[in-house]
Amino acid sequence: MTPSSSGAESALSIARAYAQGAFSARELIEATLARIDAYDTQVNAFTTVTRERALAEAEALDARRASGHNLPPLAGVPFAAKNLFDISGVTTLAGSRVLAGAPPAAADATLVERLCAQGAILVGALNMDEFAYGFTTENHHAGPCRNPHDLTRTAGGSSGGSAAAVAAGFVPLTLGTDTNGSVRVPASLCGVFGVKPTYGRLSRHGTWPFVASLDHMGAFARTVDDLAAVYDALQGTDALDPACAQRGFESVDTRPGPLRVARLGGYFDTYANDDAREASHAAANAMSATHTVEYPDADAARGAAFLITAAEGGQLHMENLRTHYGAREPLSRDRLIAGALLPAAWIVQAQRVRAALRRRVLELFERYDVLIAPATPVVAPRIGDEFMEVNGERLAVRPNLGMLTQPVSCLGLPVVAAPMRTRGGLPVGVQLIAAPWREDLAFEAARRLEAAQLAVSPPPPFSELAAHAGAQR
Amino acid sequence: MTPSSSGAESALSIARAYAQGAFSARELIEATLARIDAYDTQVNAFTTVTRERALAEAEALDARRASGHNLPPLAGVPFAAKNLFDISGVTTLAGSRVLAGAPPAAADATLVERLCAQGAILVGALNMDEFAYGFTTENHHAGPCRNPHDLTRTAGGSSGGSAAAVAAGFVPLTLGTDTNGSVRVPASLCGVFGVKPTYGRLSRHGTWPFVASLDHMGAFARTVDDLAAVYDALQGTDALDPACAQRGFESVDTRPGPLRVARLGGYFDTYANDDAREASHAAANAMSATHTVEYPDADAARGAAFLITAAEGGQLHMENLRTHYGAREPLSRDRLIAGALLPAAWIVQAQRVRAALRRRVLELFERYDVLIAPATPVVAPRIGDEFMEVNGERLAVRPNLGMLTQPVSCLGLPVVAAPMRTRGGLPVGVQLIAAPWREDLAFEAARRLEAAQLAVSPPPPFSELAAHAGAQR
Repeated sequence: MTPSSSGAESALSIARAYAQGAFSARELIEATLARIDAYDTQVNAFTTVTRERALAEAEALDARRASGHNLPPLAGVPFAAKNLFDISGVTTLAGSRVLAGAPPAAADATLVERLCAQGAILVGALNMDEFAYGFTTENHHAGPCRNPHDLTRTAGGSSGGSAAAVAAGFVPLTLGTDTNGSVRVPASLCGVFGVKPTYGRLSRHGTWPFVASLDHMGAFARTVDDLAAVYDALQGTDALDPACAQRGFESVDTRPGPLRVARLGGYFDTYANDDAREASHAAANAMSATHTVEYPDADAARGAAFLITAAEGGQLHMENLRTHYGAREPLSRDRLIAGALLPAAWIVQAQRVRAALRRRVLELFERYDVLIAPATPVVAPRIGDEFMEVNGERLAVRPNLGMLTQPVSCLGLPVVAAPMRTRGGLPVGVQLIAAPWREDLAFEAARRLEAAQLAVSPPPPFSELAAHAGAQR
Repeated sequence: MTPSSSGAESALSIARAYAQGAFSARELIEATLARIDAYDTQVNAFTTVTRERALAEAEALDARRASGHNLPPLAGVPFAAKNLFDISGVTTLAGSRVLAGAPPAAADATLVERLCAQGAILVGALNMDEFAYGFTTENHHAGPCRNPHDLTRTAGGSSGGSAAAVAAGFVPLTLGTDTNGSVRVPASLCGVFGVKPTYGRLSRHGTWPFVASLDHMGAFARTVDDLAAVYDALQGTDALDPACAQRGFESVDTRPGPLRVARLGGYFDTYANDDAREASHAAANAMSATHTVEYPDADAARGAAFLITAAEGGQLHMENLRTHYGAREPLSRDRLIAGALLPAAWIVQAQRVRAALRRRVLELFERYDVLIAPATPVVAPRIGDEFMEVNGERLAVRPNLGMLTQPVSCLGLPVVAAPMRTRGGLPVGVQLIAAPWREDLAFEAARRLEAAQLAVSPPPPFSELAAHAGAQR
């Protein structure tokens, strides 16, 4: 492996090659930065490149390797984080112009710190929907993030930059967040693996919040092993995040034996077009899953998530909307105001529905370890598209890309999103959904899809040629 | 002991005397019913007397005793329940005329069933504020419940009938509920002990709900031992109440050694008049508590409880208010409508405040086992009084009797309310507040107050003479 080839390489193979002395971290980071410099003008995944920090950390790591010290497991692996993660010395934008003048963060977010402690090297901050409220990363301040598979298409959102940076081969690992689908939607559209763990599993400390009761931290990678490695590195309670500090483990037996998998039908077929539904069937077939089951009242769960998001987000941003309305993202500012002014009875009812559904959905996991559903109704729409057609129904793109992810995250369930091939060549993801705290089962299912070679191949490293071809489609 | 003397006797002494054959359960229940018949026209604690059921159960118990079977610990003890507890065959009123035509309950509430399983005998259902929204039991349908210490005064609410029935010596034990103070306020005003355990400790199954995130079940008694006995009998998770089924025990060390007690100052002194403040000081002195500490942002906790109550209650009752506005209690119907229409951002903020304060208040319990505060700002106001004077401030009686209880229940903390003497002769209660799941420490504190003979003596059995004297005051 050479440093310049590493855009196609997995994080773990980079770490192995680095540990074996195949190249220096300095060379690797220089090649990574050169790749970003050369191609990200077309993708627009990065909003900040932390060049000096990355080079300094690379040199420190090289010195450590030279002195014969043991290297941590992710030593030398470049990564980047959605720009709502605090990066010491960098202003946390959370996708918003409103924060551009804020002082730089005093410290790294807990999860950035944890990856760095494992030897990974941060190279920058990534594009996103303003304050994470959106599914397309059509950011009016930073410009839209483009899908490396086709530059005329959206990367999905709100962690669009995080998915695109991995799909483009800029870095093998990125951090993102998922409130209603913001890891799973861009993973699906960009053809990469993504994990949104159980609510409360990963510390949110040092990240810009959106919806306290729904915000999850997550990650992206091109292989299941990489995703598992980054997930392992991120874990651990954190007294600085109350949701993560007071974890209430529900008892779930560790059950040896074959993985019991079912496909979700009903709502999850209704709001999936042929591409997405075929992906769900193909994933089920690969795991010999013959049962199709109903997720109880998925539409109510989605409605609850929608209202809770608008109200909690609205409450968080009310003051700021009063004072900075003009500077706010036009795609979300009015939705937040409307959310703040919903009648309290609606939000209370949404919370009740959510609690009741959670109990009912948990019963499904007495029979099944993993539930399969598409991650998005469609493959990546074109940037600027207002509507999409799903089984003859014309739906607004921006709110409805999360149609299939919202009912799941609303209940805090862990999901690995696995990218699948479609006939047209563009990827679409499936959600592998497990019981709370049983990410292991979702990872196991993802491994099987990967082994069955049903998952989209890692895209080739982004090149001028590919970009050009994409732009012409 | 004779059956007719048992109005002054504790539940445990009744159970002992019964087990020893001092009287039959039939005699005991007949005497109890006669006492209620004779005097409750003046107190108005009962809305239903379950005469036939009580006599049938008494006879069954007598037969069991006669056959030499072991008797359960509360065998023969008469009790009654706030009329929002389901009683098999009786329509659950929850204080409302709206429910008067509803079909009778098919089964006993879980807690009624548990007391009966321990041998206690249900003799009736008790007066309350409509749907538990009130602190005075001035029920426009059933008429006001009167305070046995002075019949011109309120018994407090919303479990006013439950406190008054114990204070009057009708029964030694009653069940009530506490959303914002509905056990502690009437316990304070009626001079009896009351317990509002940790949120989620006691099953709510088979009770009419009010505010899901604040509703607690509780009990009343004239002695700490009785209160502990009933509390013991009521415990145990219940799959039928989600809040009680999924208990998340927080780890609190069982710490041997002297009880560490502090008095709450600040807000809890500001909203207590001399009677209440002196009671709090006397309780602190009796336990050698020299520290006065601040409960962080008690006013914010109270505000949060107020908004959450209005919104959750409003959501619950919205449909019913649309269709039965005219039949609803005038004292609360408009508050519920206003609550349903609060802006969602307010209720979200209230929930955030609540979660943040809980974390801060829990820190107090690293230093103290029990915190002391008055249970009500004043002794029992007169029925119909709209205003009360607290330290020179004129406050509306009905919402503000819960001023000192709301900040505590809002965070789900367990409390034993202990009745104290005031100079004027009327009782006022103190709250003995412990960390979540540490009811044992609150009970221990109550035992010390009882031993110090600071607590109000059990009132004499209610008699015509006393009633007459009270009515003339």
